[in-house]
Amino acid sequence: MRISELSERSGIAVATIKYYLREGLLPPGERTGPNQASYGDEHVRRLRLVRALIEVGGLPVATVGDVLRAVDTPDLPMFSLLGVVQGSLISPAPAASDAEWERAYETVRREMDRRGWSMKPAQPVIEALTAVLVRAAQLGYPEWGETVLPAYFDGARIVAETDVATALSAGERDAVVDAVVVLTVLGDTALAAIRRIAQAQVSLEKLRSDSAPSA
Amino acid sequence: MRISELSERSGIAVATIKYYLREGLLPPGERTGPNQASYGDEHVRRLRLVRALIEVGGLPVATVGDVLRAVDTPDLPMFSLLGVVQGSLISPAPAASDAEWERAYETVRREMDRRGWSMKPAQPVIEALTAVLVRAAQLGYPEWGETVLPAYFDGARIVAETDVATALSAGERDAVVDAVVVLTVLGDTALAAIRRIAQAQVSLEKLRSDSAPSA
Repeated sequence: MRISELSERSGIAVATIKYYLREGLLPPGERTGPNQASYGDEHVRRLRLVRALIEVGGLPVATVGDVLRAVDTPDLPMFSLLGVVQGSLISPAPAASDAEWERAYETVRREMDRRGWSMKPAQPVIEALTAVLVRAAQLGYPEWGETVLPAYFDGARIVAETDVATALSAGERDAVVDAVVVLTVLGDTALAAIRRIAQAQVSLEKLRSDSAPSA
Repeated sequence: MRISELSERSGIAVATIKYYLREGLLPPGERTGPNQASYGDEHVRRLRLVRALIEVGGLPVATVGDVLRAVDTPDLPMFSLLGVVQGSLISPAPAASDAEWERAYETVRREMDRRGWSMKPAQPVIEALTAVLVRAAQLGYPEWGETVLPAYFDGARIVAETDVATALSAGERDAVVDAVVVLTVLGDTALAAIRRIAQAQVSLEKLRSDSAPSA
């Protein structure tokens, strides 16, 4: 199909598609003339993925490029690929004093050790979590590393088991990679939304049990 | 303290503090002269909260204003306040065809009904979750509403129970409100990070069990 049809089918303006082509987010079409190229279904699909990473994942275009280059490197080990995807989809850590940072970092490591989680995950992820604990302490909640963190680990473990099983069930490497990227970017938003739904439900149950007459 | 000291203690530039004052994100100081005002510890604390909402929550300044106005309305019922906070901290839903939308929305409602979750949560939250399922279907994963969603509900429920208990344990209304806002904004990032740590751990365990010699 021509770029005009690609634009129609994807709902993305021709100028934007040309920008993605220049930035390498989209592989070039098959050249059919001096100023013309032909595009296939894989371009429609890739455009959807780019929009999901930008709109749902909130990634800058340059970072989307990093993720897609990793996805397109056929001999990159799955673990390195996971690292790139996971590292990209997390906010950078803010500044904190060494002492605050050290204390929060120790809390994270202790929680992982307690569970026997020997995996060294991508460093940006550990830093992002450490940064959250630093922030919480700065905002007056230094105890959350002890009181709140364990339940978050329990909940995240249940979600991660389904994440990994779902991604692996996709079959071939390319399909697994695609599922990992889509699930990672969409999963955060889904989890944030469901957490709020669950909070509302738990609050309601609490309200009901508090106002019920005691036996 | 004077604005220069407030700037030093909070690490935020005087010009930025003045901007927050103009936008109503920070209550005015106590006037001590025609061009001078005095600020207290509550201003230091409020500035930290504003930065957390902007930097961790990724909220635009106008939305931070909405959240803080809700926080500062003493007779706003807790449930309405939760709705404002939760609704602000979620991305707006993208466009989708009516049929795609209807199908995804039904999946969300069915999962809630199955659990007996009678609470009607803030509408933006349901829409955000529906939008994720629409996106997943558009990207080739129409089955995720059935296969992935239940585990996300299970995990989110565990997290939400701790969220609500932690917020309520803060005591007075003002303290509870503060804890809700901070926990909501920091919790998403924490959960996203821990989910990635758990994914890495689950992948490692899977790899080990796959490569273990069969008995």
